[in-house]
Amino acid sequence: MGSAPSVSSSITARLEVEARPTAVSELTTAIEREGGIVTALDVTASGHERITVDVTCATRGDSHAEAIVAALRTLPGVQVGRISDRTFLLHLGGKLSVESKVPIRNRDDLSMVYTPGVARVCEAIAARPEDARRLTIKRNTVAVVTDGTAVLGLGDLGPLAALPVMEGKAALFKRFAGIDAFPIALDTTDVDQIVETVAAIAPVFAGINLEDISAPRCFEIERRLRARLDIPVFHDDQHGTAIVALAALTNALRVVEKSLPDVRVVLSGAGAAGTAVLKLLLAAGARDVVVADIEGVIHRGRPGLAPELEWTAEHTNPRGVSGSIPDALVGADVFIGVSAPDVITADDVARMADRSIVFALANPRPEVDPVEAARYATVVGTGRSDFANQINNVLAFPGVFRGLLDAQSHRITDAMLLAAATALASVVTPDELNPTYIVPSVFNPEVTTVVAAAVERAAREANETADTVVG
Amino acid sequence: MGSAPSVSSSITARLEVEARPTAVSELTTAIEREGGIVTALDVTASGHERITVDVTCATRGDSHAEAIVAALRTLPGVQVGRISDRTFLLHLGGKLSVESKVPIRNRDDLSMVYTPGVARVCEAIAARPEDARRLTIKRNTVAVVTDGTAVLGLGDLGPLAALPVMEGKAALFKRFAGIDAFPIALDTTDVDQIVETVAAIAPVFAGINLEDISAPRCFEIERRLRARLDIPVFHDDQHGTAIVALAALTNALRVVEKSLPDVRVVLSGAGAAGTAVLKLLLAAGARDVVVADIEGVIHRGRPGLAPELEWTAEHTNPRGVSGSIPDALVGADVFIGVSAPDVITADDVARMADRSIVFALANPRPEVDPVEAARYATVVGTGRSDFANQINNVLAFPGVFRGLLDAQSHRITDAMLLAAATALASVVTPDELNPTYIVPSVFNPEVTTVVAAAVERAAREANETADTVVG
Repeated sequence: MGSAPSVSSSITARLEVEARPTAVSELTTAIEREGGIVTALDVTASGHERITVDVTCATRGDSHAEAIVAALRTLPGVQVGRISDRTFLLHLGGKLSVESKVPIRNRDDLSMVYTPGVARVCEAIAARPEDARRLTIKRNTVAVVTDGTAVLGLGDLGPLAALPVMEGKAALFKRFAGIDAFPIALDTTDVDQIVETVAAIAPVFAGINLEDISAPRCFEIERRLRARLDIPVFHDDQHGTAIVALAALTNALRVVEKSLPDVRVVLSGAGAAGTAVLKLLLAAGARDVVVADIEGVIHRGRPGLAPELEWTAEHTNPRGVSGSIPDALVGADVFIGVSAPDVITADDVARMADRSIVFALANPRPEVDPVEAARYATVVGTGRSDFANQINNVLAFPGVFRGLLDAQSHRITDAMLLAAATALASVVTPDELNPTYIVPSVFNPEVTTVVAAAVERAAREANETADTVVG
Repeated sequence: MGSAPSVSSSITARLEVEARPTAVSELTTAIEREGGIVTALDVTASGHERITVDVTCATRGDSHAEAIVAALRTLPGVQVGRISDRTFLLHLGGKLSVESKVPIRNRDDLSMVYTPGVARVCEAIAARPEDARRLTIKRNTVAVVTDGTAVLGLGDLGPLAALPVMEGKAALFKRFAGIDAFPIALDTTDVDQIVETVAAIAPVFAGINLEDISAPRCFEIERRLRARLDIPVFHDDQHGTAIVALAALTNALRVVEKSLPDVRVVLSGAGAAGTAVLKLLLAAGARDVVVADIEGVIHRGRPGLAPELEWTAEHTNPRGVSGSIPDALVGADVFIGVSAPDVITADDVARMADRSIVFALANPRPEVDPVEAARYATVVGTGRSDFANQINNVLAFPGVFRGLLDAQSHRITDAMLLAAATALASVVTPDELNPTYIVPSVFNPEVTTVVAAAVERAAREANETADTVVG
């Protein structure tokens, strides 16, 4: 599976070329011959003999971009100037700003925004702390918290290098749910210190979104923060993935006309995402789930089973399957991979039950080539945007937090996650549903509102909301 | 000294009145008779017999507002409806928002703002951590940190009730210096835990502004954070106040034609602000400063001198003055109060040297009635916006941080504080300078740029800036 050129690896090259009729077409031909895709072309200056052209093209990555630039340098009469990178240009100065919502034009404004007027607001909150949800940014603000130990698929890059992801996440919170999110990138990987730090800064926030914290530390951090704080704590790598996977599976099962309690599911991956997907599948009614990690299928008798896998061994694998993932796949209805590239082959998919479902969510390289898998499976989904059925967390977390914040919820429960998954699945109408359309577009504005409404309702039913819902 | 009605205590009353020619003037007369000031009047609905009027008026505070509403209720034919409060209305939902600076219109945008494109930016920062100042919000972001123990003059209100002040501060950072500031209100008052928490969240920020943390804890927190972090740590209650007080004193001394090394200064207050003002006065060349706290003048021989006052006793009071503040004031040239209401009287001011200077900065009630003090002193300043010469921290902290951030400074030093004070004083031109105009307006756009340039220059001279200043 070759990766296609992507605008996220776009470069813009400033080129000086001779003012000849074929000069520009020679440039674009050279780029295309190297496999780049020209997405913009702009003559920025022109003289009698030479013109300056800014050519933007999508590439497959840094080395591909270098190859394209090298090819341009070999063209006769072409001078290669500054090369800029669209993604880096977009990141200059960071992706977020903090803005004042109130005008400060004169002393009158100043006297209300700050001293002396603000003192009365402080005193009102001191007298009635729950009014902080009405009179401060707590109402609509979420912390996006990381320690930088599991940044995307890149591993432990540390807090500074994790920051572009956290900023991006905050930008998505605003874009898709109108939520004010702020990145907190922690200069510690110690579980105790992370818990203490997040607890200490919690007053400003109405919710905590944990992000890119490595397993198994993320489980303890989440559990302790949930026990300690009176605001919901969500770990997107776990719960966001689980919600979208369950929503996608719900619709995929509709396509193949099977039902969750009756299907055999093989789940590859027992880390943060895998554990959360498992728990939500079981909560939704799945009865035959076989989980595998890098050492093979997890079962009670597996030698040297890690303590954190004991719960999984107890609650899955009712038929006592053992062996490798390909062994477990024979006759299975559903494969869900949240693990690593290339753990199964198309031949393994061929041995699954009829009308099988394959979600290969490892990113950027899935557990199986989705094009190959689609030769045998009826429904195939990945985590990638360049294939159909992208299982993308952006479908879940904005709406989930919008609902939690609107309900002023103190907690997040499995019932709310299930409600979110059901709501997300429902956005795809029966008329739209087909093997290549099991989840809605992230740009469908209904996604956030439908998920938010379901989560808000579940939160109010669970009576986990603030005692007095203040206006 | 009676306080004047303020728009920061404005109310808007919705009134239904009879449609008679004098109906409206009866309302405004009633409000003015009670001492309120009508600032807006809007007929929002009209019928044949009755009209609905929204009247906005400035009051002296909550009980005054109640008295005005009570007076309105006694008017014949008037029905009092909803009463709203301008300051509270302005605070609804908080005063800040977090915005995305980048558009997210389609999958292409998404692939650059978030995965997969963001991965390349993360890897670039992992390889060159100093690039975080170029490619993330760290470049322009400051934390406004409090534990809520010394909120304005109100004391220990806790982190939630402190939040409106921190949000206001962040709004001022944006308004006056284009800085993205985010409030961190800590749910702990333990010094160790505050230091650990701020150190843990530091990666996102290029500077820390401590705010409303009670003395003497604030000194240790500042000292330990400065030793530990590679970004500047500024405590506005100390350093901001000191900068503006020194700038004001510099210009006041010009007015009275005296020089700092030659004058006798009496400083009332040995807390956070007092200590910082003292240190900056000494750094600027003052030689005869007498400091007093609630127990009177501080000198080496004072019985039971607290350990934190020993430094002050060692470095001040060269003439060995003892006794009360009024005793020390006899023949003094300058009084600076950063302490409590009414610690001196106009008679005490009368016993100061000719052409004396009085800064009574306790807020909202100064150390001496400024109108009374002005009968004897040549220059009088306060912390209040309703008198001339307001010594207002807004004159300092935006420009100071703008300069620190532009220099990418790792530290803040006394030299930078002095540079800020000198620059701030210089904004008042010789032609403008007079006893009622020793500091510029906070809305003078030169204030931030001049202070920022001076601080940036001082930071670069001190070689405290990032090794490679990245673009």
